[in-house]
Amino acid sequence: MDNRIEFIYLSEPDTIKLGIMDAPGWVDVCEEVFTLLAKGDYLMGGSNHNSHGMGIIFPKESPFPNMPVAGPDRRFFAMPAYLGGRFDVCGNKWYGSNAANTKRGLPRSILTVLINDKETGAPLCHMSANLLSATRTGAIPGVAVRHLARKDSKAVAVVGCGPINKSCFRHLITQAPQVEKVFCYDLFIEKAQALAEWIKKEYGIKAEAASELPDALKDADIVTVAASRIKPLHIESSWLKKGVLLMLTGPAKGDDKLWTESKIVYDNIKLHEAYVEEAYASGDVAGYYAGVIGGPLYTLIDQGKLAKLEDSTDIGNVILGKKPGRTNDEENIVFVACGMAVFDVACGFELYQRALKQGVGQKLLLWNEPYLK
Amino acid sequence: MDNRIEFIYLSEPDTIKLGIMDAPGWVDVCEEVFTLLAKGDYLMGGSNHNSHGMGIIFPKESPFPNMPVAGPDRRFFAMPAYLGGRFDVCGNKWYGSNAANTKRGLPRSILTVLINDKETGAPLCHMSANLLSATRTGAIPGVAVRHLARKDSKAVAVVGCGPINKSCFRHLITQAPQVEKVFCYDLFIEKAQALAEWIKKEYGIKAEAASELPDALKDADIVTVAASRIKPLHIESSWLKKGVLLMLTGPAKGDDKLWTESKIVYDNIKLHEAYVEEAYASGDVAGYYAGVIGGPLYTLIDQGKLAKLEDSTDIGNVILGKKPGRTNDEENIVFVACGMAVFDVACGFELYQRALKQGVGQKLLLWNEPYLK
Repeated sequence: MDNRIEFIYLSEPDTIKLGIMDAPGWVDVCEEVFTLLAKGDYLMGGSNHNSHGMGIIFPKESPFPNMPVAGPDRRFFAMPAYLGGRFDVCGNKWYGSNAANTKRGLPRSILTVLINDKETGAPLCHMSANLLSATRTGAIPGVAVRHLARKDSKAVAVVGCGPINKSCFRHLITQAPQVEKVFCYDLFIEKAQALAEWIKKEYGIKAEAASELPDALKDADIVTVAASRIKPLHIESSWLKKGVLLMLTGPAKGDDKLWTESKIVYDNIKLHEAYVEEAYASGDVAGYYAGVIGGPLYTLIDQGKLAKLEDSTDIGNVILGKKPGRTNDEENIVFVACGMAVFDVACGFELYQRALKQGVGQKLLLWNEPYLK
Repeated sequence: MDNRIEFIYLSEPDTIKLGIMDAPGWVDVCEEVFTLLAKGDYLMGGSNHNSHGMGIIFPKESPFPNMPVAGPDRRFFAMPAYLGGRFDVCGNKWYGSNAANTKRGLPRSILTVLINDKETGAPLCHMSANLLSATRTGAIPGVAVRHLARKDSKAVAVVGCGPINKSCFRHLITQAPQVEKVFCYDLFIEKAQALAEWIKKEYGIKAEAASELPDALKDADIVTVAASRIKPLHIESSWLKKGVLLMLTGPAKGDDKLWTESKIVYDNIKLHEAYVEEAYASGDVAGYYAGVIGGPLYTLIDQGKLAKLEDSTDIGNVILGKKPGRTNDEENIVFVACGMAVFDVACGFELYQRALKQGVGQKLLLWNEPYLK
């Protein structure tokens, strides 16, 4: 029997060659993943099959001088998943994150994805996954805009102007080509200005930086939020235009009405149920809620002010036509999206398939014949 | 600034070239890890810093025909860790396991380890880790024999004759060169015979297969247990020789006396505390205990029949001379060792250092300059 195992390695330039930065297609891939999530054809980590993943959590202080301590965005995380449908593979995203990286000229996180055969566990494709991760995160609001935005949306607000929200914009604009105006807001006005300039140049759309958040929001039909976790973002419901689609890729707080007078559409209800379960298991529910995007929603659900998760709408069932999405142009919709390993597996598998077809990447030998059986 | 990132890839043959199968040295590496565990200079996954890792757990049945379902030894697992001391790196072991692999001529598990810079998260070395994993698992009983076995140990029993216990034997025998006789026991006598033949040939030590477990145990001063989880192994205390060192790398059950009349030495008390914590959080304590090596001990501790974990002995403190190990030749000692990601990180780092020095492995480009910052 031939037991030789080889797998493919893709550098970041390889993933670019394979189209990771070509926006439209990834919205389709992510839409497909949402339908698999709604059907239940996936497994993420843990006994509830829906854990976000497992991190190395650095302590606030340590008696060991070399041990990393807690800092902004500082963590390591492993995110394993199986995804069904045409993907039908397992994989793991593994990354280290540290806000201090940006001072070194490096991205905040450095990520790789490994895709594995579901039967044998053999590696199929290992890849640099910074672009993959930004793309899958950005394509998800693209899916939301396709299904939940007003068809006549004319203005977009980009709240938080880092690489993640830039990716969100790149994807959502493919779904709303009629948009005429973009408002950019960031804690640092220069970042908002830079993104506005880039949008004008790249897309020929009017774009401007807003120095106050309400100014960025007041005319926006589509709002994409992916701001740094360093300073909490607060959004008042009165700042929003009627009929808005507010998409949270990063955390935001707001008055109760922001949530209770909107239709909430979740990325995956079971994931949020798992978050709530983990919050209660942690013994510090409020503390746990404070650290996750859905926290403000879970708090209102616990208080009976918002529909229970099991009675709520997920985008997968909207795509499948099993639950209503937007029913009129006046309703505000909040779309909540957390990172999920299944999207990394989907996009990683897609790149792997393209690499096979196009002969891109480096073949690596695991073994010619396993030394131990 | 030069932001080019490269890392090293090591195939299984590369890891052999770098000495992964050269037994004596890895016992020293693992001994070093135990002292770091005792000092607390490490972080594994989760908020308790001591989780074994996070798995994809396959369901017993699935409505999706392609979805993997539960089977013998079938799982995927991510095991992240930071390890201090001279290692001072992060890393993750990621593997898929499936007993059916052996029918395909493949090892039961296929494993890789990725070692990362603790500050930036950048990958340093990705490697085939089947041999690494077998070596770190085998070297741990080597450390136990060094510190806990009778100095005049003459006979060894190998209970379970698969690749893991073969690795255990390869390492422990370096610490007990005076051994004159080895008894091999396995559910399948042919496997026991094959291991006995190999030991005779490789080490020139008398070795024989025992068809009954008590026969294998009755004269053994050192017992290494790493049997398949498929059929539970039962050991009666009366079958053991006085003064034995019984080392559990895999699960075993026994009468209460097996545990209560032995001195228990743990690999890492905090890990076992985390297992107990996770068992209680799972809502099915007995079910959880049944699946882990320490289960029979935790049950007796809960019943008040065995010393609490916090009052127990760990091998790291024995090595450091802070807790007594063996105090006389009559006491029975049970050493309990579970897999820990810190050992993978330690051995992975050691291979990475050797690869740098010896120029072994393949350099892989992550990026010349990160496309997104």
